[in-house]
Amino acid sequence: MKFIPAADVKMDDPFWSKRFTLVRDVVLPYMWEILNDRVENAVKSHCIANFKIAAGQSDEAFHGPVFIDTDLYKWIEAVSYLLSAEKNVELENLCDQAIDLIACAQQADGYLDTYYTVKEPGKRWTNLMEGHELYCAGHLIEAGVAYFQATGKDQLLNVSRRFADLIAETFGEGKRRGYPGHPEIELALVRLYEVTRAEKYLALAKYFIDERGTGEYLFENECRREGHRFVFPEMMYFKADYFQAQQPVRQQTQASGHAVRAMYLYSAMADLARLTHDDELAAACERLFDDTTTRQMYVTGGVGAAKRGERFTTDFDLPSDSGYSETCASIGLMFFAQRMWLLNGKKGCYDIWEQALNNAVLSGMGRDGTHFFYVNPLEVVPQTVQHNPTLAHIKTQRQKWFGVACCPPNLARILTSMRGSLYALDDDRLYILSHIGSSFEQGGLYVKLMRQGNEYTLTIEGTAREIYLRLPENSTLVGDRYEKREDGYFVIHHAGGKQQYVYTLQPSIRVLHAHPSISALTGKVCVQRGLTTYCVEGIDNSEPLSTLRLPADAVFTEEKADWLEDDLPVLRTAAFSVSQKDWEHTLYRSQPGVYESKEITLIPYSQWGNRGEHEMRVWLTEK
Amino acid sequence: MKFIPAADVKMDDPFWSKRFTLVRDVVLPYMWEILNDRVENAVKSHCIANFKIAAGQSDEAFHGPVFIDTDLYKWIEAVSYLLSAEKNVELENLCDQAIDLIACAQQADGYLDTYYTVKEPGKRWTNLMEGHELYCAGHLIEAGVAYFQATGKDQLLNVSRRFADLIAETFGEGKRRGYPGHPEIELALVRLYEVTRAEKYLALAKYFIDERGTGEYLFENECRREGHRFVFPEMMYFKADYFQAQQPVRQQTQASGHAVRAMYLYSAMADLARLTHDDELAAACERLFDDTTTRQMYVTGGVGAAKRGERFTTDFDLPSDSGYSETCASIGLMFFAQRMWLLNGKKGCYDIWEQALNNAVLSGMGRDGTHFFYVNPLEVVPQTVQHNPTLAHIKTQRQKWFGVACCPPNLARILTSMRGSLYALDDDRLYILSHIGSSFEQGGLYVKLMRQGNEYTLTIEGTAREIYLRLPENSTLVGDRYEKREDGYFVIHHAGGKQQYVYTLQPSIRVLHAHPSISALTGKVCVQRGLTTYCVEGIDNSEPLSTLRLPADAVFTEEKADWLEDDLPVLRTAAFSVSQKDWEHTLYRSQPGVYESKEITLIPYSQWGNRGEHEMRVWLTEK
Repeated sequence: MKFIPAADVKMDDPFWSKRFTLVRDVVLPYMWEILNDRVENAVKSHCIANFKIAAGQSDEAFHGPVFIDTDLYKWIEAVSYLLSAEKNVELENLCDQAIDLIACAQQADGYLDTYYTVKEPGKRWTNLMEGHELYCAGHLIEAGVAYFQATGKDQLLNVSRRFADLIAETFGEGKRRGYPGHPEIELALVRLYEVTRAEKYLALAKYFIDERGTGEYLFENECRREGHRFVFPEMMYFKADYFQAQQPVRQQTQASGHAVRAMYLYSAMADLARLTHDDELAAACERLFDDTTTRQMYVTGGVGAAKRGERFTTDFDLPSDSGYSETCASIGLMFFAQRMWLLNGKKGCYDIWEQALNNAVLSGMGRDGTHFFYVNPLEVVPQTVQHNPTLAHIKTQRQKWFGVACCPPNLARILTSMRGSLYALDDDRLYILSHIGSSFEQGGLYVKLMRQGNEYTLTIEGTAREIYLRLPENSTLVGDRYEKREDGYFVIHHAGGKQQYVYTLQPSIRVLHAHPSISALTGKVCVQRGLTTYCVEGIDNSEPLSTLRLPADAVFTEEKADWLEDDLPVLRTAAFSVSQKDWEHTLYRSQPGVYESKEITLIPYSQWGNRGEHEMRVWLTEK
Repeated sequence: MKFIPAADVKMDDPFWSKRFTLVRDVVLPYMWEILNDRVENAVKSHCIANFKIAAGQSDEAFHGPVFIDTDLYKWIEAVSYLLSAEKNVELENLCDQAIDLIACAQQADGYLDTYYTVKEPGKRWTNLMEGHELYCAGHLIEAGVAYFQATGKDQLLNVSRRFADLIAETFGEGKRRGYPGHPEIELALVRLYEVTRAEKYLALAKYFIDERGTGEYLFENECRREGHRFVFPEMMYFKADYFQAQQPVRQQTQASGHAVRAMYLYSAMADLARLTHDDELAAACERLFDDTTTRQMYVTGGVGAAKRGERFTTDFDLPSDSGYSETCASIGLMFFAQRMWLLNGKKGCYDIWEQALNNAVLSGMGRDGTHFFYVNPLEVVPQTVQHNPTLAHIKTQRQKWFGVACCPPNLARILTSMRGSLYALDDDRLYILSHIGSSFEQGGLYVKLMRQGNEYTLTIEGTAREIYLRLPENSTLVGDRYEKREDGYFVIHHAGGKQQYVYTLQPSIRVLHAHPSISALTGKVCVQRGLTTYCVEGIDNSEPLSTLRLPADAVFTEEKADWLEDDLPVLRTAAFSVSQKDWEHTLYRSQPGVYESKEITLIPYSQWGNRGEHEMRVWLTEK
């Protein structure tokens, strides 16, 4: 089972192509300015500046977080996915410039990390828990692989290989013991293996994965070493489970610790399980995926409920107002979900993939392409956010940039690469996993999925094969010549030659209830259209939104709003609001609230906060 | 209008006398051991040890927070109220010992503060924002006044006067400008004025109150001074409103900042308004009391919704799980409420007084008298508290002691002094404000309120007068010879001589709804009996408690539970629970939950956590 890679797929979708174009025309050029510290009134990045110092081209001081290099790597990776779709001389030139600079910053032995080169020379590998060297190496490798695959240019790939080789010489059985505080290199090494076929990279990934959580606790030993300095002082209090190192990964059963770290690690585990046919590891992945998605995931596809540590907490702890739900964590969940699909072929993996993409991921970027959310709460009352320090991490408006800016470049790379996760081939079977307008040609097979609203025309040209169309949760698929399977796929028996198959995929609108163990959601309901979660926003409905009540049997009408894409209707329904009359100077009373009929408007969660500062709420109290 | 002071009132109540006895026999002796660092496995206090250093009797190093002296002052104050009720040679001897030590620690010029004497000599008054010298002085004065009133011994009173005199020489118009970061001295100076009749103390209180929030912001200037060191680094980020100094107090309209500071300041403002007949200040007090109690108070009488800063946040922000609701803040609310009553005579002030006392205050102390809550949340899921760092301030079990241990001695002094707030005289009118079994004799008037369950016998002997009995909210008062007034009092026209009046005061049980603007409480209800708030606890009801649903028209039966006082029934009612069946591996679904009938047991909120670690929940989702 293999995905048709992004380089072979062309996206042409009424909704998602606009996002791709926005990334190309606005986001990536904007980020380049940011990386060069040329955007006024935005937090300074220092990213390129640090590379210049490390390359000996500047003698300024290092600034920025320890993992700042990755912002440039992810930017190059995102540009690569763009270049694999279409020419863009300007962005490619900027990449080449950047790659020259990165190459200059590489040390003679292959080491490459501006923080340790400039700010902490001689301290290499002394703080795997917090130092992020292996994390940076991972993003370097991913960028090197992507740029090579997109352009055929191997300079960055070779830079990354030299660093990977140094790491392979340094760590492993009989060498230095180690694994990264922030997983990422593991999945990157798998990609490096896939492009180079050099087994040692896969072996190194396996070493990092399997060493984690075994024997003496590595990071505690590090912290105890004389002269140890904490990079992030609060990490002093974090235990092994924060780093997914509380036990060997094969024994783990509950998604734990920093959510992005967890998602990247589990993704690599799923890669390794698939490539090495490791059933035990695959079973661990199944358990962790199940726990993540059926006990610790927001209805937006958000994961990681706590601000402190940006972390998973415990099953069924999903607070709407104080939650974290980092954009990057949901991107990581997409990585994990698509790899789980490669492992088990279950269509539900792609329901999760879409649930994350449509909601918590897409929410991360404003409609202008220059404002971003890092944290994606499900309930915001600006007045409360402003005054309650428990919610200090919540932003009521997307930001221009961040001191820790992992999310914007991660958004850029997922939006430019997502077309590489739409189709998969398994011998004579073709999977169409997400119904996003696109096409590809590979080995004599031509596939084009054309979408107009909910109407799809699938053109297939090639030899006989079975086409498996995934039926997304909460949608209805209607068409001729389809055989519906119990496992959630529709099958077309393509007899060969060129054929057109038309179908309608209608997202249903449903009112969702939450698991009764979720303390924060008792008595609440939310609205989903297909796998798009909806919310109410103050600008459409009178504030406070806490007064709204939604009947579980509400009937919705879809409407087009001027400010939204054609493909994203707003929903209107007859609901209720609790009157605020007769409550003056009364905080609690025995007389029940008086309900008034109220028509309410719901918008896709991903689009909130694009029209100024207002209240927002996903879960409404059921009437 | 004047209260009959604690010294003149004898408490004899089936419920509250047990608390008094517990404080006498267990809490105060236990605290003495704590203050002397003799309790194993409890956080060390260092309180007495610091006084010994300051007194030149030890050369150890200072330990503990900057305001640690107050633990001893509050302990002496609590013992004083006990001694004003009954002899206790042992505790009185310990007090005398402690007072000798305190006197030795006083500097030649009257200054007294172990932190600044031992740890930061020469830094007096340089950090009014954080240094707590004036706060400590306030508690010293309160202890001096209380011990003098209880025993006639004036050593501590004189010590405190010498310090107050030094402060009066130091601060004021034409002298050093200042006011305390933590109000407390203001209300203490009023007490000192009332016992000494020295106007300068009242003038100093007025200066501190009226200087606050005027002109250049004092604390910002302090922080900017060269060599300034923060005692509490997080205070760096706190603005003037944290210290109730954002504007002159007379202009303030919203309770803001650190909740205990706010309550102590507003209490002093109410004192000053009353004593100086200052209508403008009284109006400010009315506004702040209204905001506190009708927009920012938990149904438990808890105030201060945020952990960081232990502070008020904004109107209608009252989260159940992450809330703070410090025990001391509710004690402060009792102070504020009883002073508001002196100002305006409105019976509702005492509803607040009882609501705080019966719930958030009483909750602070365990039934054993040796375990305490500092934070009083309205919803606890131990598994979540353990794993979600947002809730790190929540304790699921009462603690032996605290690094910052303001609450336990504050509990001791409120439980030993509350009898001084039960009766008030206004010329020929006697107010009976809270129906707690007790008696007093003063100026030829003898009053005895005997309580057996809900049956009361009021004996009055003395000249003709009107007796005003407060009707507590959510209760029914039935008896002969009572005239019900619209303002919530029942009046007895006592014609003179000795008379007995019997009445029944039956607390009603009601289901409460919250103001529709409280985001955290939409669709939720809670149960109150009289002014006692109830909760469900896991030990009585199957966990998770999030599955429970309560009908707003539920009918309750009262039952006696073996582990509870006679006067505190548990409540039972027919409710519902959402089945957890058919939710395996499902986090969200459109199919509504299946309700099952379930009889549930509710216990008084103040008594939760006395039977091991379990879930607890005040607000249940309405069915």
